[in-house]
Amino acid sequence: MSIFTKIITGEIPSYKVAENDNFFAFLDINPNAKGHTLVVPKKEENKLFDLSKEEYKNLMDFSYDVAKAIEKTIPCKRVGMSVIGLEVPHVHVHLIPLNEMADIQFAKKVKLTNDEFVALAEKISNNF
Amino acid sequence: MSIFTKIITGEIPSYKVAENDNFFAFLDINPNAKGHTLVVPKKEENKLFDLSKEEYKNLMDFSYDVAKAIEKTIPCKRVGMSVIGLEVPHVHVHLIPLNEMADIQFAKKVKLTNDEFVALAEKISNNF
Repeated sequence: MSIFTKIITGEIPSYKVAENDNFFAFLDINPNAKGHTLVVPKKEENKLFDLSKEEYKNLMDFSYDVAKAIEKTIPCKRVGMSVIGLEVPHVHVHLIPLNEMADIQFAKKVKLTNDEFVALAEKISNNF
Repeated sequence: MSIFTKIITGEIPSYKVAENDNFFAFLDINPNAKGHTLVVPKKEENKLFDLSKEEYKNLMDFSYDVAKAIEKTIPCKRVGMSVIGLEVPHVHVHLIPLNEMADIQFAKKVKLTNDEFVALAEKISNNF
């Protein structure tokens, strides 16, 4: 069972942003930038392009709505999207408020307190 | 007119991989890794999430097919996807064969000759 499945089932707590029958969105706890969110299919699949076309398009559809909610919540130049997956073998879409290139390089990280994460997840969720 | 529109119209030459009525895919000439491809909507739009939901889903649909063709052509751990857009204000999806994190950080670059680009574009195109 992947760490993301444990998050989806609640075995590991998370700062949830949005959820439907097939997908789950929550704040990355080691964010590149404030508002950095992960969108994950509830079905465990390793690689993005191993999802069926339909599953992939539904994941992208849900990610679009989450990105719009992030845009409404976090001042930024734009929301970037990245799917890499070299570390956790469970598809996850990174949605990241961008102001500079470093925000999407996964090298620079920002720190938030638990209270800040809770407040942020609630704000994005309310804009979803 | 963006540099990508000039590429789509042929005013600037490119190593084309795939095309349909609405989208155009070509090799990035300053690639992170061999096979690094850009997918662009023919309609000039600055930000990914300013595309209508339908345009965005069609772009993602086309990108899926291009990614599958790249996977068939280039040995790699997986094909990564990234949409940033801080430099050229015309939506472009990066599809990048990944073996390590550095391949998607836009810091490390690889060099190919013109002949290598031509042969590579043809191979991916044949797998499309």
